[in-house]
Amino acid sequence: MATIFTKIAAGEIPSYKVAESDDFYAFLDINPLVEGHTLVIPRHTEADYIFDLDSETYLGLMEFAGKVAGAIKAAIPCKRVGVAVLGMEVPHTHIHLVPMSSEGDLNFSNPKKELSAEQFKDIAGRIAEAFNNL
Amino acid sequence: MATIFTKIAAGEIPSYKVAESDDFYAFLDINPLVEGHTLVIPRHTEADYIFDLDSETYLGLMEFAGKVAGAIKAAIPCKRVGVAVLGMEVPHTHIHLVPMSSEGDLNFSNPKKELSAEQFKDIAGRIAEAFNNL
Repeated sequence: MATIFTKIAAGEIPSYKVAESDDFYAFLDINPLVEGHTLVIPRHTEADYIFDLDSETYLGLMEFAGKVAGAIKAAIPCKRVGVAVLGMEVPHTHIHLVPMSSEGDLNFSNPKKELSAEQFKDIAGRIAEAFNNL
Repeated sequence: MATIFTKIAAGEIPSYKVAESDDFYAFLDINPLVEGHTLVIPRHTEADYIFDLDSETYLGLMEFAGKVAGAIKAAIPCKRVGVAVLGMEVPHTHIHLVPMSSEGDLNFSNPKKELSAEQFKDIAGRIAEAFNNL
């Protein structure tokens, strides 16, 4: 059965897209720790656990995530982009990319930011533009 | 100047080694969130920020980390192995691999486990054995 993330990558469920390729898709986390918090997923697998991905998909995902991280760093004021893979909520491999100003920003027990649709659109647009200019 | 992690990978500072290759080194975090919390580092770069690594080193590091995660999963009771890259403490790229039983295990504000040298040795030995049997 298609996961919610498969449907998002296919455009069947709307998302604030920041980047995509044939195999991977990046979009804003709707419950962000900070502005610019992005999820990166593989399109064509529903492997639940990142280390269950085949080697080509795993390394392709990591390469794509690195590019998206570069775009986030260019678009969102931060010291660096942190990476986290927890993966116990949605059963579809996803990487969190979180613009960090301090270590404490990558803490999933922090309260989530509430942003308007306009704010999400603006943030996604800025990261997407940076991605296209990489 | 060599970072503390360069010295650890070179054996100049002791560590609880779990795996190594020509280019990468994995050892137990001395302030672990949970038993089996491991750090994976590149030997030959002191790039401070993971996304500043050259592509070959970055993807090699990710591939190696995936193997180490497999060994941790085999050796340490857990649901899966979480991944985090924060990188604001030690200025040398490092990946945290954290055996997780629940989402809350990957929270760097949690109190750290205090383990004896014997416990660290035992854990490192079990992961190393699993790595060699991969």
